[in-house]
Amino acid sequence: MPSMKTTINTHFLPQLLDPHTLAGSTVVVIDVLRASTTVVTALAAGARTVFPCLEIEEALEVAQRFGEQAVLGGERGGRRIAGFDLGNSPAEYVAETVADKVVVFTTTNGTRAMQVCRSAERVLIGAFVNHTVVAEHLATCAKVDLVCAGTRGEVTREDVLFAGAIVARLAGPTTALNDASRLAWDAWSGAITQPPEHRLLTASLQDSQGGRNLLEIGQAADIAFAAQLDMTDLLPELDVGSWQIRSTTAS
Amino acid sequence: MPSMKTTINTHFLPQLLDPHTLAGSTVVVIDVLRASTTVVTALAAGARTVFPCLEIEEALEVAQRFGEQAVLGGERGGRRIAGFDLGNSPAEYVAETVADKVVVFTTTNGTRAMQVCRSAERVLIGAFVNHTVVAEHLATCAKVDLVCAGTRGEVTREDVLFAGAIVARLAGPTTALNDASRLAWDAWSGAITQPPEHRLLTASLQDSQGGRNLLEIGQAADIAFAAQLDMTDLLPELDVGSWQIRSTTAS
Repeated sequence: MPSMKTTINTHFLPQLLDPHTLAGSTVVVIDVLRASTTVVTALAAGARTVFPCLEIEEALEVAQRFGEQAVLGGERGGRRIAGFDLGNSPAEYVAETVADKVVVFTTTNGTRAMQVCRSAERVLIGAFVNHTVVAEHLATCAKVDLVCAGTRGEVTREDVLFAGAIVARLAGPTTALNDASRLAWDAWSGAITQPPEHRLLTASLQDSQGGRNLLEIGQAADIAFAAQLDMTDLLPELDVGSWQIRSTTAS
Repeated sequence: MPSMKTTINTHFLPQLLDPHTLAGSTVVVIDVLRASTTVVTALAAGARTVFPCLEIEEALEVAQRFGEQAVLGGERGGRRIAGFDLGNSPAEYVAETVADKVVVFTTTNGTRAMQVCRSAERVLIGAFVNHTVVAEHLATCAKVDLVCAGTRGEVTREDVLFAGAIVARLAGPTTALNDASRLAWDAWSGAITQPPEHRLLTASLQDSQGGRNLLEIGQAADIAFAAQLDMTDLLPELDVGSWQIRSTTAS
């Protein structure tokens, strides 16, 4: 069997991505601290679906449509929004709070990243907690785009390291990498020993803008949570038509 | 003596930099393949000054002002411009062609990067060929910004690796790094063994967008040239008032 020619383009920020280049591509939206980690965790805990919303008002409207089935989650400045059921700590998204519920979730950077990916063939949500299933699925795709959410227009280390972890697993002699993919891979190789060790990955995520912000608000546990490699084999996919994230099968 | 608190912010592309943050900062403009390598080389070969120009027409106007003293250099699509004396190969900038001359130089990405740095306290030009003198000078500065030129709005590996090499030399326990600085350092650590070896650095620069473009047009020698660490201890500085790059002393 001839090896498939694969292209992996990484984008350090959503604004560096030209949406017109996404036709036929499988995209992974990456917001490790914490939106993509939390979305994966919520679905793994049995949430039926997650609605990503940019604005609080929009989240309240969507939640109203689902009445008792809705759970409102999200953050502003890292903290739970007044009147919401849950914040953005992945540890809050357990079966007791979200099983069989519709999670209506508002987070700025992650949602913006999803919005620029509308024209892709598929939009997946990736984090270290489901890293292997993401990599295994991408290995079947000819065109991959890794979109780092960043924070307020700034490149964030935690998202680029995740992109690098994916590139490190996928890149082979016939893979075409853009320089951002090559650099993400360089960075992953420079920061993390192989195989990745939870303590070192946690330390690396602490030494990032997202990590420092969480340490400042007393959420250090979320960083260790986000550094749990392969806590689940669940692969969340955004349906851009209905704008819902659901668990999908990997093939 | 208490250690000075230093801030190093790296910007993977000029458009990711807010010019308002540059007050009081010493900036290094980085376009390793090839503009900053060529500018350093031209001054090291005895050029009196270099005028960086965005457009060919502007370069022709500036050259006309200097008559016989002017040498016109630059590229479009990697190749010498019709009617110009020199292209953008650093190897062309030797004493025979540029000593005591005014080099009028047009290159798109490097010039654009310089333009966004107008409000900085000082604007230096850095490349591997003058890497140590740049690092030694920056060690005396409290606020440093490393501005990668990129290519047509795309992040380039060669520029980010250079930024990482600088961060690796400067970062200490009291240094504040933005995540792009941290990632550039990660990438440099992942890509290049310490101490850096010319063959490996050349190979890494070949495996970059700028490197591949040069290989395509038969300019492989320029990559090996750009990978020569510390060919000179000359420190070029852009005077933003007269818009000329001149050699400066390091203190």
